[in-house]
Amino acid sequence: MENKIIGLITDFGTEDGYVGAMKGKIYSLIPTVTIVDISHDIKPFDIRGAAFCLLNSHAYFPPGTIFVVVVDPGVGTERHGIVLRTEKHIFIGPDNGVFSFIIHHQSFTAEKILLDKLPWEISDTFHGRDVFAPLAAMMAKGLEVHKYLAPHTSVSSFFQAPRKMATDRFAVQVVHIDHFGNIILNFHRSDLPQSVSPRQVELQSGFLKLKGIRKTFGEVPVGDLILCWDSSGYLQIARNQGSAAQKLNLTPGQELIVKI
Amino acid sequence: MENKIIGLITDFGTEDGYVGAMKGKIYSLIPTVTIVDISHDIKPFDIRGAAFCLLNSHAYFPPGTIFVVVVDPGVGTERHGIVLRTEKHIFIGPDNGVFSFIIHHQSFTAEKILLDKLPWEISDTFHGRDVFAPLAAMMAKGLEVHKYLAPHTSVSSFFQAPRKMATDRFAVQVVHIDHFGNIILNFHRSDLPQSVSPRQVELQSGFLKLKGIRKTFGEVPVGDLILCWDSSGYLQIARNQGSAAQKLNLTPGQELIVKI
Amino acid sequence: MENKIIGLITDFGTEDGYVGAMKGKIYSLIPTVTIVDISHDIKPFDIRGAAFCLLNSHAYFPPGTIFVVVVDPGVGTERHGIVLRTEKHIFIGPDNGVFSFIIHHQSFTAEKILLDKLPWEISDTFHGRDVFAPLAAMMAKGLEVHKYLAPHTSVSSFFQAPRKMATDRFAVQVVHIDHFGNIILNFHRSDLPQSVSPRQVELQSGFLKLKGIRKTFGEVPVGDLILCWDSSGYLQIARNQGSAAQKLNLTPGQELIVKI
Repeated sequence: MENKIIGLITDFGTEDGYVGAMKGKIYSLIPTVTIVDISHDIKPFDIRGAAFCLLNSHAYFPPGTIFVVVVDPGVGTERHGIVLRTEKHIFIGPDNGVFSFIIHHQSFTAEKILLDKLPWEISDTFHGRDVFAPLAAMMAKGLEVHKYLAPHTSVSSFFQAPRKMATDRFAVQVVHIDHFGNIILNFHRSDLPQSVSPRQVELQSGFLKLKGIRKTFGEVPVGDLILCWDSSGYLQIARNQGSAAQKLNLTPGQELIVKI
Repeated sequence: MENKIIGLITDFGTEDGYVGAMKGKIYSLIPTVTIVDISHDIKPFDIRGAAFCLLNSHAYFPPGTIFVVVVDPGVGTERHGIVLRTEKHIFIGPDNGVFSFIIHHQSFTAEKILLDKLPWEISDTFHGRDVFAPLAAMMAKGLEVHKYLAPHTSVSSFFQAPRKMATDRFAVQVVHIDHFGNIILNFHRSDLPQSVSPRQVELQSGFLKLKGIRKTFGEVPVGDLILCWDSSGYLQIARNQGSAAQKLNLTPGQELIVKI
Repeated sequence: MENKIIGLITDFGTEDGYVGAMKGKIYSLIPTVTIVDISHDIKPFDIRGAAFCLLNSHAYFPPGTIFVVVVDPGVGTERHGIVLRTEKHIFIGPDNGVFSFIIHHQSFTAEKILLDKLPWEISDTFHGRDVFAPLAAMMAKGLEVHKYLAPHTSVSSFFQAPRKMATDRFAVQVVHIDHFGNIILNFHRSDLPQSVSPRQVELQSGFLKLKGIRKTFGEVPVGDLILCWDSSGYLQIARNQGSAAQKLNLTPGQELIVKI
């Protein structure tokens, strides 16, 4: 049997053993699997944070990798658990927006999980352990799961494309603040017309004006802000050896102007 | 050789490399082992937290899994290191209460580790690296360790069963506050007589009264408190999409009343 | 093929998926490798912290282990990426001091990475994913990398040996504060003449005087400070079941006196 990888993203932290329970279940079903901790430090209930973490990491994993994403404030309500398949990967988790970037960038098929078809006991509060982890392990093992799934037509997403205000300006949003305090915007490298030089792009927000998309932090003095592309191709406000978020007062959802 | 798993629970954090040292020692003795990070984020010296983390995770791991638990404020004193065996698993660590839930729920045998019999050098401050990790690796490898062990009659425990005050009420204790701010009590699902409906159970503490054990957070409005069973079957006070601990002023050890 | 280990130390945290991206790249190149999380919780840009974490962990890993250390505030500037080889291990990362302890304690060879020779695309801001992780994977796989490397003569180090002030006293520095609040000094067990008893060593700093290097925290009452050797053989100020750093006002770089 080939080497299978299951990547985990949760907001559980590790200290209560909930992630350990998921890992134990997976190893009990398929002892030879490689479980990869992608993150358990997503902020509690931070669906955007989980989506961003998945965006930044998933593309680099080998074909066939299964990602289990459990940031699930709606567990036990009528929100569905889903299985998404792209050409290269499989994604399992709640249908609450955690897969927003996946479905924005790739073609996919979606199925919902039929809880009442699962032939084992399921708690109402911990589908990570009782639903998503066992399904991932079964799929890694090559077992049939289609009897537990049904087509799912509409997948939740919080992602909004930048809004065109005029031929030379977009209203963009803060999508996420990362670990280093970089401020990630919903303006992708592919949203910039090829005719426009990155050097003439300008970001505006109140008194803040940043001109030119730069290549590295080191192009400005320590402590200064710059515009650059983040590691997934989104525009970000960064700060040389410091936190841009600490300097600026911006939070996810806030709007700024990009002039091109 | 079959695939062996060693699960680690420590309060070391990872930033100082102490966990790395333990992993290196284990891999040096048995390169094919699967080391599972269960948690390294137990609060420093928090024996209850480690015990709770182990409670929530251990049962799901395959037979033969070896758990190494190192929350060890008494390292270098006369507290013993011990090896516990249940029908399914092996547990290695200091005898200071970290195995309280294991010995409360399962039959077990216990042995103490004879430091002066170990034929390698041992520091006085880091038995995780010098005693527990190497013994776990040797056991995973199938090597004889019984010459380093002797029977151990009494294993430490902080766990107290709920105290019956009358036929219809118990004094219960806060055992632990988890990552999400859920408040875990020492009242187990099996402590509730089968004749009593979960809906009539009432929790009292000063002005706080919570009636009925519910199935999911979603049964109450966002921000409200509920009583429910936690993922290991203990009664907990939770809060829909929020922290119960932040709302209530309760700490481990405090007493509340359960009316049935 | 033998079992290869790649150990990771970064300041990325895990929540943004940057570590996940590195892991994905490595598994894509060599699916059978064992990736070991040593730490992703180094404080942002804390080169000393990364060096200390590597010091405490590396020696215990099997021969052939490859360590990738990415604390890299200068990424995108003219600082070099390097590959160090000691008799037992390989180290890959930026040449900014993260390998200070390695080169202080062991003989080594050093090569710098020739970015313009690498036949794949490289971002300016994320060499962990685009340079260090792929090179580590290639070396784990046994692929030739020497065409991407050139001799490197001088490796950066922040480490200073203790300064001898008189025959019986040294000026020593705080190197690092660890997770438990232990204060690590640049005075190594091997810096103490064999003729001097550890019991007569005295540490002085303003009003603080600590006499005698002890074996375990338990030799003093809970809350008291002691001098002892840390797990890598450096002198440390520790506190029985508490944080020495919280009690004393010392930061990395500060000088104290050791009288022998």
